[in-house]
Amino acid sequence: MAKTKTRDPQKTRAHILNAAFMEIYRHGYNGVGVRDLAKKADVTIGAFFHYFPTKSQVAYAIIDEIIHTGIMDRWIKPLAAYKNPLQGILKCFKNTFDNWPDELVSLGCPLNNLTQELSSSDESIKARAKIVLSDWIAKTKEHLKRAQDNGYLDKKVNLQELAEFIVTFQEGTFAMGKAMNDRKIFESMYKQFKRHIDSVEA
Amino acid sequence: MAKTKTRDPQKTRAHILNAAFMEIYRHGYNGVGVRDLAKKADVTIGAFFHYFPTKSQVAYAIIDEIIHTGIMDRWIKPLAAYKNPLQGILKCFKNTFDNWPDELVSLGCPLNNLTQELSSSDESIKARAKIVLSDWIAKTKEHLKRAQDNGYLDKKVNLQELAEFIVTFQEGTFAMGKAMNDRKIFESMYKQFKRHIDSVEA
Repeated sequence: MAKTKTRDPQKTRAHILNAAFMEIYRHGYNGVGVRDLAKKADVTIGAFFHYFPTKSQVAYAIIDEIIHTGIMDRWIKPLAAYKNPLQGILKCFKNTFDNWPDELVSLGCPLNNLTQELSSSDESIKARAKIVLSDWIAKTKEHLKRAQDNGYLDKKVNLQELAEFIVTFQEGTFAMGKAMNDRKIFESMYKQFKRHIDSVEA
Repeated sequence: MAKTKTRDPQKTRAHILNAAFMEIYRHGYNGVGVRDLAKKADVTIGAFFHYFPTKSQVAYAIIDEIIHTGIMDRWIKPLAAYKNPLQGILKCFKNTFDNWPDELVSLGCPLNNLTQELSSSDESIKARAKIVLSDWIAKTKEHLKRAQDNGYLDKKVNLQELAEFIVTFQEGTFAMGKAMNDRKIFESMYKQFKRHIDSVEA
């Protein structure tokens, strides 16, 4: 990795955080030490602690910033471009899993991993994950509302329940792909996802 | 807990294993030591190691025996009583989540927890979990085949894909209930599950 010579503190912090995200995603939070994280970001331990005084702070920032933003970028923002949000939701699902790198299939979803690994020992992780999931569901629901208002989605469908289904199933697909370590699962899941979305069309 | 005075080695082993299962389910594998597990089962450390020479052996036995059997008892065996297996699958889903104890909502699925906690450090855990999930999918598929043969399930439905969906969604429902720590999720998920199953009826 290239040396980090920037003197822009925001950039340095972002660089450390991104490197930590990938290391923790690959090896688990308890599988890496602060020394590994600093080394991977090519900064001194002192610099690392300047930006993240405790290892927990890194985990919090990964959820609040990288994962939360990543979920919005992947699952929500693209929907705005679709006149029919249901088609957008299907397309996002297909694109995400078609393009998921082979080497990451066995790693699953970073949010689920971090939450599963830490939530029993750190209540704050659980609360933060809940904020991200709630926002993901709420933003999905907004697009479903638009679909319903514009006559694409059956008026009788409960939007909250459908939004919860969509997020649960997106997460479930990552989890099963990981457990089986087989990306063929993604194809099966897409077909079933499409069947479900088709069943709620107006 | 009552003293274990039995001299039946199989019973003693089962007693230790069941106690270990609940302790590990509640506190995580890394959240308990062998001493805690022996104490909970009210046996000496020596007796514990006689049956389970390493802590890993306990985790393996929990997956291979308790969880595998538990999944079959909960999700597969009841289906045999239903003329229409699709109705059985819906009923199993509803019963399971309606009767899931409040205090266990935030704990989710024991298989998922143990796998998530240990699979990055122990390949054998991952392989064992895959065996359980594959069997769960295969047995579900057998009942779907029966549903199709008897005219309850649409002939065009791919049985493998639907079986994978069912297991993924059952696991996803536990995971989302845990993440949100809210059993209302279970109700939403049941309604969506029913919608999905209704959509594949013949």
